[in-house]
Amino acid sequence: MNRHQTVFLISAILLFAVIASAQNLQARKEISIPDIPGYITLIADLHTHTVLSDGYVHPAIRPDEAWREGVDVLSITDHIEYQPHKEWIPTNHNLSYKLAKGKSDQLGVMLIKGSEVTRSLPLGHYNAIFLSDCDALDVDDPMDAFKAASEQGAFVFWNHPGWPREDGIPVWEEVQEELFQKGYMHGIEVVNTRKYYPLAHKWALEKKITMIGTSDIHMPIGMDYDHRHGDHRAVTILFVTERTPEGVRDALDNRRTAVYHDDILIGEDKYLKPVFMNSIEVVTPEISIAGKGHTLLQIKNNSDVPYKLKRSSSDETRISYSDEIILIPHRTVLVWINGRSETELGRFEANLEYVVENLYVLPETGMNVRIPIVVDHSAK
Amino acid sequence: MNRHQTVFLISAILLFAVIASAQNLQARKEISIPDIPGYITLIADLHTHTVLSDGYVHPAIRPDEAWREGVDVLSITDHIEYQPHKEWIPTNHNLSYKLAKGKSDQLGVMLIKGSEVTRSLPLGHYNAIFLSDCDALDVDDPMDAFKAASEQGAFVFWNHPGWPREDGIPVWEEVQEELFQKGYMHGIEVVNTRKYYPLAHKWALEKKITMIGTSDIHMPIGMDYDHRHGDHRAVTILFVTERTPEGVRDALDNRRTAVYHDDILIGEDKYLKPVFMNSIEVVTPEISIAGKGHTLLQIKNNSDVPYKLKRSSSDETRISYSDEIILIPHRTVLVWINGRSETELGRFEANLEYVVENLYVLPETGMNVRIPIVVDHSAK
Amino acid sequence: MNRHQTVFLISAILLFAVIASAQNLQARKEISIPDIPGYITLIADLHTHTVLSDGYVHPAIRPDEAWREGVDVLSITDHIEYQPHKEWIPTNHNLSYKLAKGKSDQLGVMLIKGSEVTRSLPLGHYNAIFLSDCDALDVDDPMDAFKAASEQGAFVFWNHPGWPREDGIPVWEEVQEELFQKGYMHGIEVVNTRKYYPLAHKWALEKKITMIGTSDIHMPIGMDYDHRHGDHRAVTILFVTERTPEGVRDALDNRRTAVYHDDILIGEDKYLKPVFMNSIEVVTPEISIAGKGHTLLQIKNNSDVPYKLKRSSSDETRISYSDEIILIPHRTVLVWINGRSETELGRFEANLEYVVENLYVLPETGMNVRIPIVVDHSAK
Amino acid sequence: MNRHQTVFLISAILLFAVIASAQNLQARKEISIPDIPGYITLIADLHTHTVLSDGYVHPAIRPDEAWREGVDVLSITDHIEYQPHKEWIPTNHNLSYKLAKGKSDQLGVMLIKGSEVTRSLPLGHYNAIFLSDCDALDVDDPMDAFKAASEQGAFVFWNHPGWPREDGIPVWEEVQEELFQKGYMHGIEVVNTRKYYPLAHKWALEKKITMIGTSDIHMPIGMDYDHRHGDHRAVTILFVTERTPEGVRDALDNRRTAVYHDDILIGEDKYLKPVFMNSIEVVTPEISIAGKGHTLLQIKNNSDVPYKLKRSSSDETRISYSDEIILIPHRTVLVWINGRSETELGRFEANLEYVVENLYVLPETGMNVRIPIVVDHSAK
Repeated sequence: MNRHQTVFLISAILLFAVIASAQNLQARKEISIPDIPGYITLIADLHTHTVLSDGYVHPAIRPDEAWREGVDVLSITDHIEYQPHKEWIPTNHNLSYKLAKGKSDQLGVMLIKGSEVTRSLPLGHYNAIFLSDCDALDVDDPMDAFKAASEQGAFVFWNHPGWPREDGIPVWEEVQEELFQKGYMHGIEVVNTRKYYPLAHKWALEKKITMIGTSDIHMPIGMDYDHRHGDHRAVTILFVTERTPEGVRDALDNRRTAVYHDDILIGEDKYLKPVFMNSIEVVTPEISIAGKGHTLLQIKNNSDVPYKLKRSSSDETRISYSDEIILIPHRTVLVWINGRSETELGRFEANLEYVVENLYVLPETGMNVRIPIVVDHSAK
Repeated sequence: MNRHQTVFLISAILLFAVIASAQNLQARKEISIPDIPGYITLIADLHTHTVLSDGYVHPAIRPDEAWREGVDVLSITDHIEYQPHKEWIPTNHNLSYKLAKGKSDQLGVMLIKGSEVTRSLPLGHYNAIFLSDCDALDVDDPMDAFKAASEQGAFVFWNHPGWPREDGIPVWEEVQEELFQKGYMHGIEVVNTRKYYPLAHKWALEKKITMIGTSDIHMPIGMDYDHRHGDHRAVTILFVTERTPEGVRDALDNRRTAVYHDDILIGEDKYLKPVFMNSIEVVTPEISIAGKGHTLLQIKNNSDVPYKLKRSSSDETRISYSDEIILIPHRTVLVWINGRSETELGRFEANLEYVVENLYVLPETGMNVRIPIVVDHSAK
Repeated sequence: MNRHQTVFLISAILLFAVIASAQNLQARKEISIPDIPGYITLIADLHTHTVLSDGYVHPAIRPDEAWREGVDVLSITDHIEYQPHKEWIPTNHNLSYKLAKGKSDQLGVMLIKGSEVTRSLPLGHYNAIFLSDCDALDVDDPMDAFKAASEQGAFVFWNHPGWPREDGIPVWEEVQEELFQKGYMHGIEVVNTRKYYPLAHKWALEKKITMIGTSDIHMPIGMDYDHRHGDHRAVTILFVTERTPEGVRDALDNRRTAVYHDDILIGEDKYLKPVFMNSIEVVTPEISIAGKGHTLLQIKNNSDVPYKLKRSSSDETRISYSDEIILIPHRTVLVWINGRSETELGRFEANLEYVVENLYVLPETGMNVRIPIVVDHSAK
Repeated sequence: MNRHQTVFLISAILLFAVIASAQNLQARKEISIPDIPGYITLIADLHTHTVLSDGYVHPAIRPDEAWREGVDVLSITDHIEYQPHKEWIPTNHNLSYKLAKGKSDQLGVMLIKGSEVTRSLPLGHYNAIFLSDCDALDVDDPMDAFKAASEQGAFVFWNHPGWPREDGIPVWEEVQEELFQKGYMHGIEVVNTRKYYPLAHKWALEKKITMIGTSDIHMPIGMDYDHRHGDHRAVTILFVTERTPEGVRDALDNRRTAVYHDDILIGEDKYLKPVFMNSIEVVTPEISIAGKGHTLLQIKNNSDVPYKLKRSSSDETRISYSDEIILIPHRTVLVWINGRSETELGRFEANLEYVVENLYVLPETGMNVRIPIVVDHSAK
């Protein structure tokens, strides 16, 4: 059997050198979430830091990281009031944007100018993006900062609403109500870093403000996330009509967003439903079953999201099927379908009814889906 | 910075459990090579063994492995004359097919009945596929076996033509000429296991016989290939008009095949050219350059093949560009484009001219490609 | 910055070709669990199948898989009463051992002859290992089979005690009591495949029978476990005085075993405590703290087991420390230690007190550990 | 077979959550190269950059990266003369060290103060380490800078000697001879980034100056190296008598170094020989062969270096053995040994003679090794 043991070094070299190469490290690995009818799906990280406030990288690193990780839209939001490096880097609120712009343009990453208003509780932290001059926010009274942001037409969202509270649970205090009433708060971070705030999710739905998810990254991102190997930062998914800053702004203003955090997608049913349906492909939509026998249905998932399906109660009396399915990203999996009768036979349409547990359409609550198939049920 | 250090165990659990799960191990990972105009691309392994001859697995294992690895068409070709387990497994040439059929049908793997005629040099080994009765090949005179195969309408190809010769180099002897003249030999293994035979490649082109690549697997395939992690068996790529045994046979008969071996595709330009062009996407087909400045072009590769491009000589006087590119599978890479003049400016179409070194259109010889772009060349 | 972008293909080739090579696929990856004082630690899988009963591989595959996966001791235990392939493979209970012996010897895998007595409930399935003649167990009355095993000096254990019961929960019925009283049952599978039976764990401790964990593998093992990438089959850990069949038998007879299942070790405190202590290394056993400040302790884990530590209640008033630690295999992790006083200072010995949640010394119950350190506590 | 298909999600969760966790990302993965008799083996990177010159990270990032990657000794060597960020970060040559010191101390990374003298050709770039005041090197005449370094007792080495020459080939010009003669140059980079300079290797041996390998990293290191997955930066291996700055300096002064670059170790035979011998373990040092039969020898490699052995010519007439072996890191591989005679039998000691092709004891020249075994050669 010597032939089969030939050391295949030469050809292996060709394959694996590639994978190891500099081009690999510098390549872009997209986040695969499909477009939906009427909208292009973009990936945004609207909360990041650099050495210009309390971060640890040069601003030009952020668009480079973003490009490699499949982030289309980026905002650097250095703190206005918190400048721990100012002894050796003089404060300049507009500089992060300027230093990151060249790399962003070169790589086609859309860079949105922003700043973080950084106050103690009960106010907390807020990102203002789509700013023209960040310096205008460096004022004593926080309300003046929000006013300045408003005058520049900024989009403002509340950051990590439960932090730095002892118990991590956000509280909607009087001051938030004031901001909201004045039209100064347009969105809220439902996810910050690796932390999900169900209460923020609830408020976003109730008060009709935009759901945001951000990395709030301070370190080189590779020190916190292993994006080449299945990990990713928290991001905001934008459903835009055009791939421009105006398109981004329109999606934010009209709450056409979702949040992608670990393996969870958070958003409204009207957006997550088509995301799910456009992600999957029933490879074998017509199946044959003999009597009470079983057959295997094949479902492929073309997205990066590992959809976790749990069977919901169903009136279906003619077939039974797998209680749980995990639709592994970029794989085809098998679903068991069993006939329930030896006598009530024929050809019919049926729906596999599941809850997708990691698609949150309400706080910590999965989304119902129906996957249509055709069954040709014959006698055994 | 405590907030950023929160152990994110709970959510990580959700992500990674998935990847580890049984569903993952049992999922299908396709080989991504695109369809081409007019044809569906299928993946075939037409040479495998089981315990019924000198292999080490039950026949039902082969369709299961094939399904998981993205192989659409499978033939089990146990040896007629070599039956080392016959002391405890009585010889039965039709049994492998029978024992593998149920699993093949269940998973939708197309199973083609076959056998390996196994003789000593100078004749060597041959697979006959599309057989109806393998027993008919169990005869003394090998020519009678080929005759029997012919009478059943089999497709016959010469296996590992350089093996077991001392130097591994195939020789087209009188007996091969006889088989060829009689119309008994329709194809040849250009790749067997991890071994490529350039001479077989040359003969296939000259004599117009079909190029075949096979695993010739004897062991459980996971002991020889790590398919979940970037490795794959050698296969034959079929360009079919329909996903049926007839479609497969038609592609074989009409030499619409290629061979995929490690990271090399072997085939005719008329098939590999559209495979390449359908694999890649120039993300930014229109670029702007100022004077002798540079810009970055983005190219995405949607296939599994890591195309290795080396610049061929070119008459292009207006721009220069990267000498080497590796188009990493499922990634977007950057290509440097430089202006060559400060004065001859304007908008023009240009072609990036490369040899794709791992697409062999002739023995060990890459394929020329031209990637069209539009350049808007302005003054600095 | 061109210099830093040099394509480093040549050297990368050297590195990664290696990792891809056939030698890699055929190499042995040990399961790293340390020896303990007085005993050598061996890895055993005492329950596997082949085509000789209802498995799917040739027997010689089992020692090859075992060697590659770091299994030192192997038993092939084909069913006596269940022979679904007998139409084409005539029943021969001693043949699996014979066909696997050559490969086992060649690779140094210790092969123990065995068979599975396979009866319906309430009796169930039992492995008899250290047999000399498996045929003697092929008798009508199951008690005669146990008697025959006993006469050959076999070691007998109860397999998957909760299967195939509807609820998966084992029941110790009259017949098990009979076997136990007669001295016919010496061990019990606490883990079978990927299933842990807490009740079997309890019985093993109460009745002083040996804890066993097995793969019960039927398929090529790579189809069920991805051992090259962090996965492993369930095994029995043996603490032996010598690396011989006698040493193995002595460990089994004297209940010097543990079970390794996913990332859980199951066994008695007297064995798991030294396994844990020999796995870890406190890289910085002496630390300095100023006042209520903090310092980082480094702990390295040289084993394959990801120990998960949760702080237990402690009387320690001078320092506080991380509530949870995961000691990642073959990595060094950081533990936060804080001073609790600005005034009660000095140099002292302290113990970090944790429960290791994935070391089960009782059913689903972790093991208490104390990690000694020296603290030099000075004023801020 | 339903039992074997149970979804094992719960236990998988335990295993894989661990691997994914923040603790994993923040854990230290050592570079495994063994100690040698008389010396402790340390890993050093003596050439790195930060935002204080032309790098892209805050200085505190460098010790954090070093710790995670198993680097014991670190020097930040920002350019004296090249300060591209000085418009917004005022020049301060001593600041990188100061900003990195706290994190270094916290993690136990030994930080050596340094600077890079950065001049145009023919002089080029030089790192001076073990400086007390970097400002003293900021002078017009480069010789004054070397003099100042010398007065502070610095250790000075020539960086990337072939860069930025057109052809990449270093030239030892008059000015290098002057530095060398004056005792101003104590070492030379044999490897910088991913580039090996054979000529620098030759000079180091001839002129008895110290061989250095460095990353010269400017970016967050994770953007250029995938250290969690088999990649690593170029480093200097130090053979020290004590783990202190004095120990490091002593090893540098006495040329007890090697360079680790991709999968190549570069150094003198007297150091690489014991590194190799302490890395490997012949699992089965005594083997039995019958006549001209074969047997399998098992060799384990406990280091990170994939040693590539090619058989050298040998007078051994009694046995033949594998022409090529790759000793895969942390794996055991098999070596074929064949008897060459049926008649000259007996027990004897033999040496397997190989060149380790990726241990360079001279420029691009492997190291000869002899692996002793005992053969018990009996009649067939």
